[in-house]
Amino acid sequence: MSRAGSQTFLYDRPPLVAAHASVAGPKEGKGPLSAWFDELLADDLLGQKSWELAEMEMVRRCVQAALNGARMTDEEAQAMLGGDLNNQIIASSFAARSLGVPFIGLYGACSTFVQALVIGAALISGGYLENAVCTASSHYCTAERQFRFPLELGTQRPPQASWTATACGCALLKASPERGLKVTAGTVGRIIDLNISDANHMGAAMAPAVFDCLSAHLSDTGRKADDYDLIATGDLGWIGRDLLLELASAAGLELPPEKLIDCGASLFYQEQDAHAGGSGCGCVASVACGWLMKRLEAGDLKRLLLVGSGAMFSPTSSQQAQSVPGIAYAAAIERED
Amino acid sequence: MSRAGSQTFLYDRPPLVAAHASVAGPKEGKGPLSAWFDELLADDLLGQKSWELAEMEMVRRCVQAALNGARMTDEEAQAMLGGDLNNQIIASSFAARSLGVPFIGLYGACSTFVQALVIGAALISGGYLENAVCTASSHYCTAERQFRFPLELGTQRPPQASWTATACGCALLKASPERGLKVTAGTVGRIIDLNISDANHMGAAMAPAVFDCLSAHLSDTGRKADDYDLIATGDLGWIGRDLLLELASAAGLELPPEKLIDCGASLFYQEQDAHAGGSGCGCVASVACGWLMKRLEAGDLKRLLLVGSGAMFSPTSSQQAQSVPGIAYAAAIERED
Repeated sequence: MSRAGSQTFLYDRPPLVAAHASVAGPKEGKGPLSAWFDELLADDLLGQKSWELAEMEMVRRCVQAALNGARMTDEEAQAMLGGDLNNQIIASSFAARSLGVPFIGLYGACSTFVQALVIGAALISGGYLENAVCTASSHYCTAERQFRFPLELGTQRPPQASWTATACGCALLKASPERGLKVTAGTVGRIIDLNISDANHMGAAMAPAVFDCLSAHLSDTGRKADDYDLIATGDLGWIGRDLLLELASAAGLELPPEKLIDCGASLFYQEQDAHAGGSGCGCVASVACGWLMKRLEAGDLKRLLLVGSGAMFSPTSSQQAQSVPGIAYAAAIERED
Repeated sequence: MSRAGSQTFLYDRPPLVAAHASVAGPKEGKGPLSAWFDELLADDLLGQKSWELAEMEMVRRCVQAALNGARMTDEEAQAMLGGDLNNQIIASSFAARSLGVPFIGLYGACSTFVQALVIGAALISGGYLENAVCTASSHYCTAERQFRFPLELGTQRPPQASWTATACGCALLKASPERGLKVTAGTVGRIIDLNISDANHMGAAMAPAVFDCLSAHLSDTGRKADDYDLIATGDLGWIGRDLLLELASAAGLELPPEKLIDCGASLFYQEQDAHAGGSGCGCVASVACGWLMKRLEAGDLKRLLLVGSGAMFSPTSSQQAQSVPGIAYAAAIERED
């Protein structure tokens, strides 16, 4: 990324995805991706006293599962990069406390998992880390009461609202010459704001940022959408995915609909009343670590572009009549045979 | 940082601090460092309708001043790394929106500025960025009502409480062979929790994390405290600084008191009723960019170790009876003649 104007890191020594793990909540466990997750929670409290403590425990378990998968102890982990939607990212930092791993706290709202992959891969490829635990989580119950209303109120959700996934994903990146899944490029997005003021309409707020980041990625790398077997957005949902296709079409960017899936739109059946689809940091994290990376490993896909998106607002900014700015990060994950 | 167990990045191509800027609020402008800040605010609302909007505007101005100092436009800035204490880091992300710069949102509580230096320097030294805007801010009025009580209540502050600085600092790092201030090493801390449950006693919560990070830095680099002209902690305050000296003494780590200053303890006169000292992301950021880097440039100091510390709690975690975990990051800044 030394070229002026480029937003994309091309990794000289692409790190290996040495292991990955995913945990999904009870509702997510009844969706179409159920069989792909590594752990399904029977109960969204995980035996804890509060949903926030439950989310911390979910992150801790998911990171531990990824470390186990790579046959590593927490002492061998050089850094944990991650975040979540809780104020002051307490789910990730309290999980890092119990793991004792050097911690790099990130906040990119629902794009945090892909942000962690992009930064973690750069630190490994640059020779600064031997390995990095990249993770992000969300929990429906912690997010609703923090961003919107206490669940106890039973507030009706508008049809454009998405459903914050109770889920966590973790990918363990490692400097390694071994063949396997490699993170080959990462793009850092800009904050884009087309003046959406409906804090329930995440798809509309984030689609322009995804379009901007995707365009930058393709232009920086000289690639076309067709060079990827699949482009997976994080959590635009059904409506946001359509808006992205519309933006691409208006700008003359070739984006074949059959190449484009959305993790949020894949997480739930429409009958599950998740409205516009799944969302939250844990959505793209768990779907990437639980489903997409397994499809890459199985040979079903070879080149994946994962584009995480986030809405960088807070209840305070909305109460102060600010619009909802979006951001996106993109990571190319490719199978090296 | 490829050595197992090491938490320190040794930059092969140490980036240059091409420019730095600081903005401080009215109370900070009456403190001992008043003459050093680049802009003093006459009014903590900056002509905005709310304190949050004022903080966004303060960040935007500070970043713009650093870009101007390096004679760069925002289009030439490759990335902005930063964060703040507001929920969902809205001050930094809304400032990044108005600047149009690719954005890497970080959260390390009051350590965020040093975290940005550590990550930004690694991305530049690793060849992934040509330059990076590293910034962090805090605002007394946004932080108090979010973390503690609405100011209008006039709640009495306990003597161990610190005063969140209304301030912002920004350092523009650049890949450059030119002589000047260089970021030569960075250490990523672990989350350390000695079970402090008083969310007003930040010094006590963060001192153990600073001790852990400082010990790791010295051990990883094979340096002694004496190899630095000055070790500046972020915002331990008067009490936290004493606790750090006590921890060092108990562990047999040589830490001469005359080498150790604290940015928070330097920001206010004791008569200003800031109690334990200044704190907040903007404290270490503005003191480093306003005072310490100028002392390095003036030849008064040659080797500085800046250790930012943060308390990774939220009001929710405190209400749920969780203790206050701390984190710290260290960055070595040296003048190359």
